Amino acid sequence: MRALHMVRAYRPAGDSVRQAKGAIPRRLAGPFRRAAAAMVLCLCTTLLPAFAAHAEDGYDLWLRYRPIAGAESTGYRAHATRLVAGDATPTQAATRAELLRGLSGLLGTEPVVAAGVDGDGTLIVGTPASSKPIAALKLKTKDLGREGYLIRSVRVDGRPATVIAANDDIGAMYGAFHYLRLLQTRAPVDALDIREAPRTQLRMLNHWDNLNRHVERGYAGESIWDWHKLPDYLDPRYTDYARANASIGINATVLNNVNASAQQLTPMYIAKAAALANVFRPYGIRVFLSARFSAPVEIGGLKTADPLDPAVRKWWADKADEIYRAIPDFGGFLVKANSEGQPGPQDYGRTHADGANMMADAVKPHGGKVIWRAFVYSHETPDDRAKQAYNEFVPLDGKFRDNVMVQVKNGAIDFQPREPFHPLFGAMPKTPLMMEFQITKEYLGFATHLAYLGPLFEETLEADTQVRGLGSTVAKVVDGSLHKYALTGMAGVANIGSDRNWSGSHFDQANWYVYGRLAWNPHLSARDIAQEWTRMTFSNDADVVQPIVGMMMGSREAVVDYMTPLGLHHLMGRSHHYGPGPWVEGGPRADWTSVYYHRATKDGIGFDRTTHGSDAVSQYAPPVARAFDDAAKTPEQFLLWFHHVPWDYTTKSGRPLWDELVHRYSQGVGYVGGMRHTWNGLRGRIDAERHAQVATFLAIQEKEAKWWRDASIAYFQTFSQRPLPEGEAPPEHPLEYYESLEFPFAPGNG
Amino acid sequence: MRALHMVRAYRPAGDSVRQAKGAIPRRLAGPFRRAAAAMVLCLCTTLLPAFAAHAEDGYDLWLRYRPIAGAESTGYRAHATRLVAGDATPTQAATRAELLRGLSGLLGTEPVVAAGVDGDGTLIVGTPASSKPIAALKLKTKDLGREGYLIRSVRVDGRPATVIAANDDIGAMYGAFHYLRLLQTRAPVDALDIREAPRTQLRMLNHWDNLNRHVERGYAGESIWDWHKLPDYLDPRYTDYARANASIGINATVLNNVNASAQQLTPMYIAKAAALANVFRPYGIRVFLSARFSAPVEIGGLKTADPLDPAVRKWWADKADEIYRAIPDFGGFLVKANSEGQPGPQDYGRTHADGANMMADAVKPHGGKVIWRAFVYSHETPDDRAKQAYNEFVPLDGKFRDNVMVQVKNGAIDFQPREPFHPLFGAMPKTPLMMEFQITKEYLGFATHLAYLGPLFEETLEADTQVRGLGSTVAKVVDGSLHKYALTGMAGVANIGSDRNWSGSHFDQANWYVYGRLAWNPHLSARDIAQEWTRMTFSNDADVVQPIVGMMMGSREAVVDYMTPLGLHHLMGRSHHYGPGPWVEGGPRADWTSVYYHRATKDGIGFDRTTHGSDAVSQYAPPVARAFDDAAKTPEQFLLWFHHVPWDYTTKSGRPLWDELVHRYSQGVGYVGGMRHTWNGLRGRIDAERHAQVATFLAIQEKEAKWWRDASIAYFQTFSQRPLPEGEAPPEHPLEYYESLEFPFAPGNG
Repeated sequence: MRALHMVRAYRPAGDSVRQAKGAIPRRLAGPFRRAAAAMVLCLCTTLLPAFAAHAEDGYDLWLRYRPIAGAESTGYRAHATRLVAGDATPTQAATRAELLRGLSGLLGTEPVVAAGVDGDGTLIVGTPASSKPIAALKLKTKDLGREGYLIRSVRVDGRPATVIAANDDIGAMYGAFHYLRLLQTRAPVDALDIREAPRTQLRMLNHWDNLNRHVERGYAGESIWDWHKLPDYLDPRYTDYARANASIGINATVLNNVNASAQQLTPMYIAKAAALANVFRPYGIRVFLSARFSAPVEIGGLKTADPLDPAVRKWWADKADEIYRAIPDFGGFLVKANSEGQPGPQDYGRTHADGANMMADAVKPHGGKVIWRAFVYSHETPDDRAKQAYNEFVPLDGKFRDNVMVQVKNGAIDFQPREPFHPLFGAMPKTPLMMEFQITKEYLGFATHLAYLGPLFEETLEADTQVRGLGSTVAKVVDGSLHKYALTGMAGVANIGSDRNWSGSHFDQANWYVYGRLAWNPHLSARDIAQEWTRMTFSNDADVVQPIVGMMMGSREAVVDYMTPLGLHHLMGRSHHYGPGPWVEGGPRADWTSVYYHRATKDGIGFDRTTHGSDAVSQYAPPVARAFDDAAKTPEQFLLWFHHVPWDYTTKSGRPLWDELVHRYSQGVGYVGGMRHTWNGLRGRIDAERHAQVATFLAIQEKEAKWWRDASIAYFQTFSQRPLPEGEAPPEHPLEYYESLEFPFAPGNG
Repeated sequence: MRALHMVRAYRPAGDSVRQAKGAIPRRLAGPFRRAAAAMVLCLCTTLLPAFAAHAEDGYDLWLRYRPIAGAESTGYRAHATRLVAGDATPTQAATRAELLRGLSGLLGTEPVVAAGVDGDGTLIVGTPASSKPIAALKLKTKDLGREGYLIRSVRVDGRPATVIAANDDIGAMYGAFHYLRLLQTRAPVDALDIREAPRTQLRMLNHWDNLNRHVERGYAGESIWDWHKLPDYLDPRYTDYARANASIGINATVLNNVNASAQQLTPMYIAKAAALANVFRPYGIRVFLSARFSAPVEIGGLKTADPLDPAVRKWWADKADEIYRAIPDFGGFLVKANSEGQPGPQDYGRTHADGANMMADAVKPHGGKVIWRAFVYSHETPDDRAKQAYNEFVPLDGKFRDNVMVQVKNGAIDFQPREPFHPLFGAMPKTPLMMEFQITKEYLGFATHLAYLGPLFEETLEADTQVRGLGSTVAKVVDGSLHKYALTGMAGVANIGSDRNWSGSHFDQANWYVYGRLAWNPHLSARDIAQEWTRMTFSNDADVVQPIVGMMMGSREAVVDYMTPLGLHHLMGRSHHYGPGPWVEGGPRADWTSVYYHRATKDGIGFDRTTHGSDAVSQYAPPVARAFDDAAKTPEQFLLWFHHVPWDYTTKSGRPLWDELVHRYSQGVGYVGGMRHTWNGLRGRIDAERHAQVATFLAIQEKEAKWWRDASIAYFQTFSQRPLPEGEAPPEHPLEYYESLEFPFAPGNG
């Protein structure tokens, strides 16, 4: 079994290039494409020093800028001997500072800052408006938009130079980070012709950070926002946060939890948010706030928050004016309403559109947006929870103001290790839908489990809604191309906290990174991004990159296997969501239990969402619905999501369902064992500090994977009443043991 | 006014030497004493590079080991060319590693590790049992005890050498840290003859850390104990915590809040505590746990926690056995019982002695101790809260087991900026009393106010109880010499959290440091310790040391002035304790309000604790009681603590009370302005990173000091109905403004 995983972990490099996309093809045009690919392979075989001399604690993220070794650095240095870059605006100054920091770190010498091209190997950065040398090049930049850029090898007065040009300072900054990434990943820079522009407009982080610094579903310490010391004390970390986000194109951040406190909208906290906005502004990042719908009552002294009440409308308009006075480029409001106990327009008999439009009208004069979450399910509705968001929102399509976006989770339940794509994607052609991914691993093992989420994000984005025929992927909904949305965007629930390494583990940094890269371009390859990240974060040594990328690419599937294989979902411990809890039942709501979702009986297991069951399948486009309605045509990974099947149901492997289930659990555990083996083999090639932490976390993961397997098998066996397949170890403890475990202090509890 | 403060800040150096004690006189014997003092002065005048090339974030605390500049380092290097130190035990290995780390950092070269003295300038470290060269020297070490050490310049086979010898590995480690401190503070090391042994046995930190990582009254982030990842993941920070504590002689730590969760005593959490104990053990630090008195009910399944119930007694004995199996050197339990809602023996009609003795019997077979807190005040007793601990505990003197210590806060209320010494000191000759100081600044401005607590600790320790005549200082109670206590100790409520700089601010590190040094020797000078700390933390440049020490020494008095001058106390915002709240009244308990304590009326202000009032004065020894009973003889700093006096009462300055009160408030604010001025003058002599943070914090402090002044004056003026003295600015806002401020998310709330 372990061998099997190792095969997956070591899938050969050829597998990693997806023909229709990928970072290298996109980065380089025409003939340079193949040369670059060859060069990358070539560089990979050169043994480079695996780590810098001093200990690494992860604080630098993927912006480590450690020295490139000897001969190779000489080649790069020739292309960046001089730097022509302005500092007339804060963004220009930050861009120049980043290039000097990055180049001096990578190349060992700082390029000369020059006013013009008076030597070979000048790097010219800026916009036609801000830079005479760039204006003189008369580059075609119009189609790049405000945030796009080009990077091109040129000659100026006969001298070889490289130009990073954009229409706006922020585009130039993004180009500068791209250029640094080329060096960090050891890509060739001698014949560049790159044109890049983001595929979505709003690339946003959602912080679920409370004002007391507790982070709901946070596993990386407490909130990095030290609200108490704001606005006076600006932790240098805020700037590093902005740098990291700008480096991957994130341009918006919601500072506070969607389960919002109205206090966030008081003058004291507006001033604190404004101080953060001032730090982020040079890096192209706009601040948004989660708004509590009942704020007019709680802090405004009104008796109602009815969105049609004139006093309420005036309160929000005045509040918006007040915020924009403090934050002129304020992005707008994110709202969780009438969901999980949050107040909302339905409290007053109004619709989500009434609520969203009222707030949209308030921010509209200032160019603001309202992002309204579709994650709703009613306390009263007895219908399948998976259906409720669709049922509530599809009738509202076309009824929202043009500055409203609806933010939809990738799946219809709640960020499970695997869910089919949310049926709302494709179902609201007149309403701009934003994707909401969860970067923090609420349901994927918290900080200690190594689970690279790139494949999860990619799987959702590549899913074909078929609403406009084959190829109507979720990515095309999100990038706006399918429905010609005027607004586009993606949101990721941040995994950032006060931990020194930002994300709780070194590998969780990859999830922040891949989220940002996919928000920039939802068509990129998760594997290519894993390669980029690994090269920047750990090493460019092929003997390091290949095994790490291999580990990463299978890691999320392993979590699915040891937690919720074959379409099972929502089986975790109650409330804190730590560890297995398939036995969870009772309590205030059926859809907050596990038994609601797995529906195991002596006869079988799974949630019947077919036309014979809850009929959730019918929310998808007909061809998709037909496939999901038929167990034989349903991809096995969603089998128990859509079907209740008997324990002896024959799976694609030929094994009966029960045997296959046990096999998957064990396979998941085995994969983690394989990752430990792989990682141990990298000792000496990774700095000792990070190697040790990852090794310990993998040991924890293996222990907990086994715990998930054993508890799940012990529990489901009480229904299947079947023996374990031959060779499968029985659970270490009796079921009662697993059921008795309590974790009142598990982190991130809401 | 500002000039006045600056005079205080720059009190001439001669002032700093207290004749009867002080670090230098104690460190060096006989003729070396004067030479050392002269040398220190000499070194101070040499301008050394103020900071290392790379940025400083405070993580290294006072163990920075930055290089000593050129010529000076040559002199030191000659004394540490070779190192003879064993590594046969974990403590020996840690000691050797620390010396290699420290010496190589300070001197730029690592000494050669040698087996014997075969060259000049060998540093020999160990015990007669572990080191042949030390055994051969036949040093008199018996009186040093287990933790003491000597450091002496010797000749071995005619070669000059330095020996650090002790009876036990831990003594040698303490000696090694002392030796490093000599270099760090640029003391001479060519003719050393130092003998040091701690004056107290138990030198303990109390962490008020909850299992969810919230730190009650913590202002430095969340708990450094990542309980969720324990016992598997051992953050390297735990080791650095142990190093820092060992360097100042702290030898015990209570991991969890005195407002304890019973969960701490479950097997899961015992295993986690054991993992920490394993990290700390080599550094001589024992783990204690706060125990919840009702644990037998909450996690033991019993129906009672009555300390005389045999099942309860057995439960605790079994629990102790269980803990000692996991932690063989477990220190014992710290208990907060029948105080502020915590359960305790009085719930069953038993006494504090009954409760403490029951738990003491449980740990006695293992050599454990019970530390019982005297911070109690009854919900029912209407008497002056300041009197209640004395009233409850004095009758129990002599009734505790010999492995029980009673832990007494420095003052009778609660860690106020200034309190008279607690009347229990001197009043329980048969019961070992431990001092409890609060290092975290719950009542002194949280993390952002610069308030060096050395003078507060020193003032309490130097206070003369007079119970055995003049000179019966609190220090002599605490070190056991006054009553011949068999057990001695000191506890400090930690200010340590997950913030990168550990303590929330760079200057708050000094409070951890001075606490540890005074726990080791309660007779040391706060000013000398401030000098030590400043030299290790910032610079040995006299032009840096002198102004910083000056700032520090007056800083706590400034907080007293702008918060609670002239003996006022307990006037902070309700519950969170942030900012002024002299108007706080109502709520569940009178003694949780401010009006209970200041008792301002149109006629006057202050709490009458004289024989005509609550008679708290009579809890002190007669001569002390007589002084406190007479306003004219009461030190003015305690005037309103003991007396209710009219607004026109003539103070020592000749000013009427109201004018003096306003003057003090303004003086406090002015001092902070002076510190800002001083600190700005150090720009370029302190690394930019730390300089900037301190500068910002001082700006916050000045703003908040003014807030305290203005709010207090606005409030008390409603009683005094007197005009402000000439030249005093009126409050910036009306009283209603200050009363309206709310801080629901202030950090550290209980």
